[in-house]
Amino acid sequence: MRITKIRHGAAPIASDIRNAYIAFTKMTISVVAVETDIVRDGEPVIGYGFSSNGRYAQPGILTDRFIPRLEEAEPASLLDETGANLDPFAVWRTFMADEKPGGHGDRAIAGGALDMAIWDATAKIAETPLWRLLAERFNNGKSDDKVLVYPGGGYYYPGKGLDQLRDEMRGYRDQGYKVVKMKIGGADLAHDLGRIEAVLDVVGSGDNLAVDANGRFDLETALAYGSAMAPFNLFWYEEPGDPLDYQLNAVLADAYPSALATGENLFSHQDARNLLRYGGLRPDRDWVQVDPALSYGLTEYLKVLDVADQMGWSRRRFIPHGGHQFALNIAAGLQLGGSESYPGVFQPYGGFADDIPIKDGYVTLPDIPGIGMELKPQLFSAMRRTLEITA
Amino acid sequence: MRITKIRHGAAPIASDIRNAYIAFTKMTISVVAVETDIVRDGEPVIGYGFSSNGRYAQPGILTDRFIPRLEEAEPASLLDETGANLDPFAVWRTFMADEKPGGHGDRAIAGGALDMAIWDATAKIAETPLWRLLAERFNNGKSDDKVLVYPGGGYYYPGKGLDQLRDEMRGYRDQGYKVVKMKIGGADLAHDLGRIEAVLDVVGSGDNLAVDANGRFDLETALAYGSAMAPFNLFWYEEPGDPLDYQLNAVLADAYPSALATGENLFSHQDARNLLRYGGLRPDRDWVQVDPALSYGLTEYLKVLDVADQMGWSRRRFIPHGGHQFALNIAAGLQLGGSESYPGVFQPYGGFADDIPIKDGYVTLPDIPGIGMELKPQLFSAMRRTLEITA
Repeated sequence: MRITKIRHGAAPIASDIRNAYIAFTKMTISVVAVETDIVRDGEPVIGYGFSSNGRYAQPGILTDRFIPRLEEAEPASLLDETGANLDPFAVWRTFMADEKPGGHGDRAIAGGALDMAIWDATAKIAETPLWRLLAERFNNGKSDDKVLVYPGGGYYYPGKGLDQLRDEMRGYRDQGYKVVKMKIGGADLAHDLGRIEAVLDVVGSGDNLAVDANGRFDLETALAYGSAMAPFNLFWYEEPGDPLDYQLNAVLADAYPSALATGENLFSHQDARNLLRYGGLRPDRDWVQVDPALSYGLTEYLKVLDVADQMGWSRRRFIPHGGHQFALNIAAGLQLGGSESYPGVFQPYGGFADDIPIKDGYVTLPDIPGIGMELKPQLFSAMRRTLEITA
Repeated sequence: MRITKIRHGAAPIASDIRNAYIAFTKMTISVVAVETDIVRDGEPVIGYGFSSNGRYAQPGILTDRFIPRLEEAEPASLLDETGANLDPFAVWRTFMADEKPGGHGDRAIAGGALDMAIWDATAKIAETPLWRLLAERFNNGKSDDKVLVYPGGGYYYPGKGLDQLRDEMRGYRDQGYKVVKMKIGGADLAHDLGRIEAVLDVVGSGDNLAVDANGRFDLETALAYGSAMAPFNLFWYEEPGDPLDYQLNAVLADAYPSALATGENLFSHQDARNLLRYGGLRPDRDWVQVDPALSYGLTEYLKVLDVADQMGWSRRRFIPHGGHQFALNIAAGLQLGGSESYPGVFQPYGGFADDIPIKDGYVTLPDIPGIGMELKPQLFSAMRRTLEITA
């Protein structure tokens, strides 16, 4: 077998939403398709991937570096020992050849989209859902049949008041979510406390609400919010300071009794290791949110989980950022703590298979080969349009 | 005044050289020109910039994100309070708008090239060399009239034996360099020790020789090399392990008595701060090599120096990677410890003004407005060719 063609394109996921740090009015993602000469049900197998939101499409890195390296490689060098399927690790080493260490930013986002497509193709060729393939290869055959999910929502946007915020959260609860998340840090503390209390009206108690500062706070502000929010005992307090300011995180962890969560802006196992070494996170309560679709894909995410394991962390403390089916498959197949969801934003790329409901805050997984993007027709047709796949 | 046009292009700097981590057979850099409506000597002022070697050109980020943001900005918002010159800080904030925190990789390389061009234009409009502008604005008017430089050389390439290595180093010494640098880690320890001893034949003693492992070693190998090299008391032992493995660095610093150097693969003040917080570097002997042309430019580099200052580090411990006149100007104007040089590689982008000799390991600076790239005609014409500037 061989890869016959790799396509990529940039897809808009623009909206008027804001978090505490950026606006999303020009946000894009990269979409990738890896076409193979394997035929299933009369059609060539194509693996699909896309990068998560927040870090823009990566046309330059895919066009000039990653894809040419795969095109120039001896096809057999990208296959597993049977020669009948891809070896995602060999593919990864090939597209990352002649890349210097360090500097895990946009390159990791390009790698996330490409690696996702490779794993989708690999699972499709193996005629198994990705979650089951992962369970078999890396988790002694064990998997979860449902995954904790929460909607990443509660963004700031023009004209949005407390009523709209409450309505949004009520909508998530009506859809079957239990824990919801809202943004903080885009306003001052007093205003944000009003917003938090408005959402607590809807969700009842703090263990149903996570808040997300998107890395906006300095230490003083992070501590002030922590002190004001501590009585709510929130589900988590996310990304209080700059993602690389491990010291801020450690000082806050010392002062704030409830759970912290961070990691969506760390894009390699080396960065994740530094978070666990220096960030003061507590393995009995805190959460790590590294997003495989932003961090060189599942292939690197397995190294992140290895590092965590070596440092005594349970995989159950990992809930990836991103709200995509890739993370959902990984969460089920490797028995993580859960997965983010975007039922309301970043459409059609946010959210899961259309016909599988959320129930009591959990979602089940489809049983079709690959990641399952075909079961989200609006996403699937948008990707194919972007990639000009017409067959 | 206003910016009238921003051009960019990718220039090849390919060669057969290797370090311990990557080959440079397809290496490219980004070249940028910022054209203004200010006229000097009958010509519009154009600022030029380019990214350092090792991390590839960044067409996607410049085309899709940074340059459109500057083009869409109100021109007056990019100017200083006089309205007669650019404000590089305002320009930087504008091109970095709606970029999330963390993930300092390719984005920082694109920013390095663009910010270099902005500072070149700013100094030209001010009709002063960049080094003097920096001394006046940020260093109480003080500057160095000569800067310690060393050639980044001693690469591995096919067929290169000890004789060629010795010849290369003899060539640098003949050009006026005192300290030279060679790669290690691309072979085994015994072989590398032979290479080190061959170079010591030429340069006399260890204080004239730096070695660079380019992040290749695990802890055990880093310690083994350190132990074997300690008797030489080398000028420095550079980037032993992964640039983000601060713990490896700290353990090595505990065991290795002579100087360490690292930082060329850290691209933000947050990453540099983590190195100083966790990397075990010793302010009395070790060196920090953050490269402004790879790290969002001088604008971010000033934050790196601020962080260092707050942590009790002298600027004299900073010797930027990169071998370009941008770092040379910064080293002179802000009184750093020195600057790398590439007399032999990455041509025509490596090295300094053609008519200024190296003497006893030091170089002086030209006294023309801007960075001085016009005094390196081969570089200057290569950039203009890449950018299709014909006037």
